[in-house]
Amino acid sequence: MDYAKESLRLHGEWKGKIEMVTRVPVKTKDDLSLAYTPGVAQPCLEIQKDPTKSYELTRRWNMAAVITDGSAVLGLGDIGPEAGMPVMEGKCVLFKAFGDVDAFPICVKTKDVDEFVETVYNISGSFGGINLEDIAAPRCFEIERKLKEKCDIPIFHDDQHGTAVITLAGLTNALKVVGKKKEDVRIVTSGAGAAAIAITKLLLSAGFKDITMCDRKGAIYKGREGLNWIKAEMAEVTNLDHKAGSLADMLVGADVFIGVSAPNTVTTEMVKTMNKDAIIFACANPTPEIFPDAAKAGGAKVISTGRSDYPNQINNVLAFPGIFRGAFDVRASDINEEMKVAAAEALAALVGDQLSEDYIIPAAFDPRVGSAVAKAVAEAARKSGVARI
Amino acid sequence: MDYAKESLRLHGEWKGKIEMVTRVPVKTKDDLSLAYTPGVAQPCLEIQKDPTKSYELTRRWNMAAVITDGSAVLGLGDIGPEAGMPVMEGKCVLFKAFGDVDAFPICVKTKDVDEFVETVYNISGSFGGINLEDIAAPRCFEIERKLKEKCDIPIFHDDQHGTAVITLAGLTNALKVVGKKKEDVRIVTSGAGAAAIAITKLLLSAGFKDITMCDRKGAIYKGREGLNWIKAEMAEVTNLDHKAGSLADMLVGADVFIGVSAPNTVTTEMVKTMNKDAIIFACANPTPEIFPDAAKAGGAKVISTGRSDYPNQINNVLAFPGIFRGAFDVRASDINEEMKVAAAEALAALVGDQLSEDYIIPAAFDPRVGSAVAKAVAEAARKSGVARI
Repeated sequence: MDYAKESLRLHGEWKGKIEMVTRVPVKTKDDLSLAYTPGVAQPCLEIQKDPTKSYELTRRWNMAAVITDGSAVLGLGDIGPEAGMPVMEGKCVLFKAFGDVDAFPICVKTKDVDEFVETVYNISGSFGGINLEDIAAPRCFEIERKLKEKCDIPIFHDDQHGTAVITLAGLTNALKVVGKKKEDVRIVTSGAGAAAIAITKLLLSAGFKDITMCDRKGAIYKGREGLNWIKAEMAEVTNLDHKAGSLADMLVGADVFIGVSAPNTVTTEMVKTMNKDAIIFACANPTPEIFPDAAKAGGAKVISTGRSDYPNQINNVLAFPGIFRGAFDVRASDINEEMKVAAAEALAALVGDQLSEDYIIPAAFDPRVGSAVAKAVAEAARKSGVARI
Repeated sequence: MDYAKESLRLHGEWKGKIEMVTRVPVKTKDDLSLAYTPGVAQPCLEIQKDPTKSYELTRRWNMAAVITDGSAVLGLGDIGPEAGMPVMEGKCVLFKAFGDVDAFPICVKTKDVDEFVETVYNISGSFGGINLEDIAAPRCFEIERKLKEKCDIPIFHDDQHGTAVITLAGLTNALKVVGKKKEDVRIVTSGAGAAAIAITKLLLSAGFKDITMCDRKGAIYKGREGLNWIKAEMAEVTNLDHKAGSLADMLVGADVFIGVSAPNTVTTEMVKTMNKDAIIFACANPTPEIFPDAAKAGGAKVISTGRSDYPNQINNVLAFPGIFRGAFDVRASDINEEMKVAAAEALAALVGDQLSEDYIIPAAFDPRVGSAVAKAVAEAARKSGVARI
């Protein structure tokens, strides 16, 4: 199927992928007097007395905002706020279908970090949580940090953390397949954008030790000239030997490659220089850093991509619906590292004893995923003190 | 029924009066590839090339935002943004039920005019129109004016214009009942807030000549000390003889009283001093400025209130759903005076030859209302040059 052509045709037919509906009867005068004036004054007054009642008396408890500035939409780059909306609506569809989370798409017409933060903060009382989407790095890190400081609801940049959670889940199982330990493996990433940085941070949180990040100029190391603030920050906790060199140089002797960068950046020859039983996550989409056959030819043992037509697909739909479901179920004030690690562990555990090199991550439509992730996330929220009910 | 108690109980049961649903299938990999990646890139690119395509390829064409700062919610005053949300959700329910308009409730956490305007402007690309709700005067006027200047979508403060449209419709028919002409009648308002000012402006647009506004201190006249900017502006076009005095003073010899103020501000004795066949709009809610029986005892001929248990209810649900429906149907860039007057004329015309002192306005549940208003508004948008399709 020509997805591009058919998708465009369908979007014209659908006239929107989401819709608002009413949950209450509006047939009689009494209906109006209860759902609206004069009766509605009473729930308003209850919320005035105790603003947390907004979670009981309005839809807030189940409502996420999916918010972008349109600056890094899919692989299309900065296409503008309105042009990002088909993706945001699509994300809302997935929230509902896979997590029973109501989600509403919003695009914000500013590229200024503080103005964006102020805008989102100002409307945050309408929502139970905020999913940031397709915002360019490094701006996205600052936006997320500032919003987390200001807001009392979860702020979650899915391009970072969703991808990171699933990568951690997949890598946990891939290590079992090849019989290696997280403390021992040497990991090299290609890409130093939102996803690569979040993956690196989460892997470090989860106990991995040796990670080297590469951007277009090669290895990121402490003191390299021209690093932006977030890369400089990452240089403090990665590449502990301060190695310089190209991605190819870094891959020599590495156990794991994680690509969230550009098509065809890795060759069979490069894989051959890696350690035995190499693990390859080639997540550039739709064309990966290296195709599975080429990676196999280089001796790779476990290969994961972003594509649904190869085994081990890294698909964000495995994580964000269940993560928000779990956070909402306990009215969490945050989605923290503990909750993300718990989500990854739950995902990894679902594979169980069916584990093989071609099955390290549950499939996108596995019906167990949403509730398993939600349960683990809710428990982690309770244990880490961010649950509010 | 104890509406307050029962409404609170029901709000707890409903857990939100609105819900987001999906309009597309999400059962197979192909479904995902069409509604989301990779197919969704194509509609994004189309909108990037031509942002007006957002009206064809996303839900924007039918999506209104219902936005408040919580500063003047019902008659409850400034109860805060979150506490206004039950009313906003209720409004969204009415939009859908009476106009088939999708509407989403948003509360904004700021009382600063420019910050509010910036916040709403920044998210305006997500919507086809903005319904402002329950924002205190005189801030609401400045907010509306600034948003109309910045945004290319309709901005409509329903507390002002919805009420004004229905009052104009009702008054047009009331004048037929008593056989008077709009050019000749003397009108006195009680109240100088959002609704009173919008009513006065719309009546002047529609050809009424002689209006005197009263606030708590009595008649507003040019040069009165301590008038805020909007009252000073209104003093230029009302009370042309610069009369000073109390509401009771002003009512002597008046033909029409329009109250959008406080309970029990008018007595039978005051009505007795009005001109023969007086028309009374006593819209304070739930307790009117004067109850119908008391007004009748003073000689009033036609009486309208905000209550559903008396004839001639001024109920905003008669106007805003059809007004947005009509504006959306022609992708209007504005809701202008011509469109409001057309809505009022359409409402008045629906009464037809059943006109009587007890039937000057269609009932809230009259099934003809929404489409009649929408049709008239769409036509007026075309004629006045704000229709875009």
